[in-house]
Amino acid sequence: MTFEILETAIAKFGHAMLESEEGITEKRRVETNPNKNMARWPIGSSTLQSTAIHPKFIFLPSNVPPVHPSTVLAMSGARNLSAALRRVRVSRPRIALRPALPRTPFATVRSFSVSSPVRADKEIKYTSDAYPNVQRNPNFAELTADDVTYFKELLGSESAVIDGVTSDATDDIEPFNSDWMRKYRGHTRLVLKPKTTEEVSQVLKYCNEKKLAVVPQGGNTGLVGGSIPVFDEIVVNTSRMNNIRSFDQASGVLVADAGVILEVADLYLAERDHLFPLDLGAKGSCHIGGNVSTNAGGLRLLRYGSLHGSVLGLEAVLPDGTIVDALSTLRKNNTGYDLKQLFIGSEGTIGLITGVSIQCPPRPKAVNVAYFGLESFEQVQRAYLEAKGQLSEILSAFELMDGRSQRLVQDSTGTKQPIEGEYPFYCLIETSGSNAEHDMAKLESFLENVMGEGIVADGVLAQDETQFQALWRWREGITEALSHLGGTYKYDVSIPLSELYQLVEDCKQRLTEKGFVGDDDSFPVRAVVGYGHMGDSNLHLNVAVRKYDKEVEKAIEPWVYEWIQKRQGSISAEHGLGIAKREYIGYSQNDTMVKLMKQLKNLYDPNGIMNPYKYI
Amino acid sequence: MTFEILETAIAKFGHAMLESEEGITEKRRVETNPNKNMARWPIGSSTLQSTAIHPKFIFLPSNVPPVHPSTVLAMSGARNLSAALRRVRVSRPRIALRPALPRTPFATVRSFSVSSPVRADKEIKYTSDAYPNVQRNPNFAELTADDVTYFKELLGSESAVIDGVTSDATDDIEPFNSDWMRKYRGHTRLVLKPKTTEEVSQVLKYCNEKKLAVVPQGGNTGLVGGSIPVFDEIVVNTSRMNNIRSFDQASGVLVADAGVILEVADLYLAERDHLFPLDLGAKGSCHIGGNVSTNAGGLRLLRYGSLHGSVLGLEAVLPDGTIVDALSTLRKNNTGYDLKQLFIGSEGTIGLITGVSIQCPPRPKAVNVAYFGLESFEQVQRAYLEAKGQLSEILSAFELMDGRSQRLVQDSTGTKQPIEGEYPFYCLIETSGSNAEHDMAKLESFLENVMGEGIVADGVLAQDETQFQALWRWREGITEALSHLGGTYKYDVSIPLSELYQLVEDCKQRLTEKGFVGDDDSFPVRAVVGYGHMGDSNLHLNVAVRKYDKEVEKAIEPWVYEWIQKRQGSISAEHGLGIAKREYIGYSQNDTMVKLMKQLKNLYDPNGIMNPYKYI
Repeated sequence: MTFEILETAIAKFGHAMLESEEGITEKRRVETNPNKNMARWPIGSSTLQSTAIHPKFIFLPSNVPPVHPSTVLAMSGARNLSAALRRVRVSRPRIALRPALPRTPFATVRSFSVSSPVRADKEIKYTSDAYPNVQRNPNFAELTADDVTYFKELLGSESAVIDGVTSDATDDIEPFNSDWMRKYRGHTRLVLKPKTTEEVSQVLKYCNEKKLAVVPQGGNTGLVGGSIPVFDEIVVNTSRMNNIRSFDQASGVLVADAGVILEVADLYLAERDHLFPLDLGAKGSCHIGGNVSTNAGGLRLLRYGSLHGSVLGLEAVLPDGTIVDALSTLRKNNTGYDLKQLFIGSEGTIGLITGVSIQCPPRPKAVNVAYFGLESFEQVQRAYLEAKGQLSEILSAFELMDGRSQRLVQDSTGTKQPIEGEYPFYCLIETSGSNAEHDMAKLESFLENVMGEGIVADGVLAQDETQFQALWRWREGITEALSHLGGTYKYDVSIPLSELYQLVEDCKQRLTEKGFVGDDDSFPVRAVVGYGHMGDSNLHLNVAVRKYDKEVEKAIEPWVYEWIQKRQGSISAEHGLGIAKREYIGYSQNDTMVKLMKQLKNLYDPNGIMNPYKYI
Repeated sequence: MTFEILETAIAKFGHAMLESEEGITEKRRVETNPNKNMARWPIGSSTLQSTAIHPKFIFLPSNVPPVHPSTVLAMSGARNLSAALRRVRVSRPRIALRPALPRTPFATVRSFSVSSPVRADKEIKYTSDAYPNVQRNPNFAELTADDVTYFKELLGSESAVIDGVTSDATDDIEPFNSDWMRKYRGHTRLVLKPKTTEEVSQVLKYCNEKKLAVVPQGGNTGLVGGSIPVFDEIVVNTSRMNNIRSFDQASGVLVADAGVILEVADLYLAERDHLFPLDLGAKGSCHIGGNVSTNAGGLRLLRYGSLHGSVLGLEAVLPDGTIVDALSTLRKNNTGYDLKQLFIGSEGTIGLITGVSIQCPPRPKAVNVAYFGLESFEQVQRAYLEAKGQLSEILSAFELMDGRSQRLVQDSTGTKQPIEGEYPFYCLIETSGSNAEHDMAKLESFLENVMGEGIVADGVLAQDETQFQALWRWREGITEALSHLGGTYKYDVSIPLSELYQLVEDCKQRLTEKGFVGDDDSFPVRAVVGYGHMGDSNLHLNVAVRKYDKEVEKAIEPWVYEWIQKRQGSISAEHGLGIAKREYIGYSQNDTMVKLMKQLKNLYDPNGIMNPYKYI
């Protein structure tokens, strides 16, 4: 038994030997280089190599010749060495990983999407110009000075941002008139920021009576232009409704104003050992009311389910000022139609959500993140099925990123990729569980399997909070990396898993054939990129362009929607319809459904003042 | 070290000794009696005792004097003895349990609720007599021979059960006219059993035009009379729509006709390593369409969430014959209002569900069940919080049963209770996970904690499939045990956890003070019993009566609803409104909500033909 020798060696020199099933049959030297955070291990004629972010942790891909099934060894720091070595004495290659440190998971992951909109120098095109077929509804009244006076008296002048209606208008209204992608821009002259549900009720009642159109707006982080006015609609912004109303430790039920920022809610819950059951890149800016209005899916739907299941109650205001008080905190309540469900995903078209009651799970005690390179989409699918089967109840994310998306992140951040070599596909897998040791054992067994079977070509595992964040950044940073390139045509679609990535290939081929794709500025398209939530069969197809170009758009649409329709997919998996997709709902919903939806819209908003020109 | 000695001893004699943290300080004798499946362990002046179903497994309650923290030892069979003994060397008492055998979980659990309705000799009172204030709506047409001819031609005569309309009426219509509780009874003379969605569409269109009232009926296992006609409504039964349409192994999405029996669907999924995300006592009879219509909660909502989250799509027929084809199989689809949600829990009042698409999780590879006795409801709450914290992602059920409910099961089945002694409260805890070893370690740690802290007084753990079923029977058998007593007033309510059981105490006190409760036949009330889904804050208050008695009912209602309203609970957590609670919705929904619900009902069913006299 060489445990002591190995332990001493690794502690003193950072070297180690390994032992096969039958005893010590091979001695190999592991070179760790703390400066490079990398280890190399020469084996036979091939050179196995792997990067580990943590210098004391090494793990190696298992493309070892089959004659030596036990020659792959992983070592953790000296503290856990003996445990790691015990695992070597099995016939199949095994990889022993050090359990991740206890930490407050997720909470400190930096938000990306909304920071620093790029090319602020270029003017954003008005939506009304970009969509010339959309005409202002002449039934809507124009805002008057009297209206502004009414609102200022009702809400106080600090709750109104005004531009151009009255002489005292000095505020900068532009941030409320355009989106962070710099894709949509409206003409509003009034932004209202009510502080209470009662104030929202008064505002909407007045607008409904006067036929003033309204756009509800939360953190304005949407991707389909849903929260930006098209013409002169009044923006009703929820940013001043930002109180957490209650939290019950025993049941895990949080009740909060619609304008609470998602990350604020999650940090509040983190202090109470709970987790907001939704997480997404824009968490630092988006409002939970907006999340519910758009039925946001995000990174961990796979684990915590959709908002239709986790939202227990809502408070909302109908256009006529009626306050819908369905803010139940009960997990079960079968007393009549579940009306709150209609507001989830309705994008502010039938009412404005003012309060949310939501079931929050206990915060996982252990969270691990691994990042892989894979040789084909077929291998990605195999890896997903293995993860689903083996990681099962602790699998909290399975994210797909193509090679192009990762090179874009590398170019925009200047960061070195977590693994060496170039792969056509990358995956990020996260586990969240209540027992670090068990989770690590499951993950280890999974890794052993996918690496042993050659499903995964290379990979790394985060060893601490910093690395956890760093790995997630390779997924969450894609949106920002893309935004540096000019503009992006974004398609957020659901497709059966087997064909998920084919859409990217087909789209790229189509645009290339049309001569749109190229590396110099004469080509409108820079890159066709695919990534998304593999676990939800949800792909984000992104066409990065040097500037928005109607010819490119026409080459993509409606072709992309027809492609999806043929596969009975959804043209909007989680981003919603907004103005971007309002015309295309027919590709995912039949005429009967659209008719029934219009009937509902007319029922709740007969004057059509709520978020007009969008949705259906 | 005495491991060898102990191992030999237990293997040969069934005896063992124990070791404290500091070494061997005490020697005690464990007597196992394979015939009695029980072990006794005299300790100090008190006698600890515990029953184990499996003779090789023993575990002991830990009400050991605090001066000897390590004097509680559990032993498994000789095969695992050394592992068990390794665990003894910790300072806190530990309990080692043998991992449960691999099995196909849940699938073979016998269904209870619907079998053998009792007292079939006594005639069931007509609902129209029991609710004299409910009058037949004169706007509805009366069924004619022409109508019957139309339906027979449309569906074929084998799809119609007729009684008393035409001369050829010979079928027994009674099973469709009354419920298994023998509480509700209608006057229908026609039961239709369409086989396709198209046929349902034709039926409803005809009924709507002719103003013939309709009651959708699935397995007829409801508890609030929702699927039983009140007057002469035509029953549209889904029993002939029973095909599984598709199942996708990769995504876990099942698409099936509404009339598929829940247990059939689950057995189908079991063969494909998946699980129906709903389970309830009536699974052997209830239809999945009925489950969705009533938004059934059941035994594992705690783990798999509500149907609002897991149902991905629905197919339904509106009263005017419109087929709502929203049978999406996509996990994410944000294209317009999520109309299917309106049908979930609408009890057939706006349309008839004909098909269901549902997300099914992988079947857990390991399932364990434990059954406990506890000394107070406070201890039950503590046990629940411990389970939530420690069992976390693998906790799949936490059921509460009071002492009275367990004695009723004992009396009706003649089975010996799993643990000795009488306790005021019992709990059933189930875990479901992907790794038997990990799950057992978590369960063991949990058991050690709750027994070590004195939260749980005594308990057993199922060791095989038979025992798994046997333990669940103590929970699932309550409904049937109650049905043997005569009648039952059932209240299915949500209340904040801390006051959950207080309702039972208060109700019992109230009925006792009024002189209704007693052991001989002169008293109308036999027992006031409480049980339910602790994990969902969902209590079933059951008042068992010798026969249904308006005086008793008046003493309970509306008092019970007022009690719940004061605590902002729900008067129907999962059973729905039906006819039983239609009058009381105001206790859980405000006037605005009721108004909005009525508005929806009028929108979809302007003639009011769908399941009249019920819901709202």
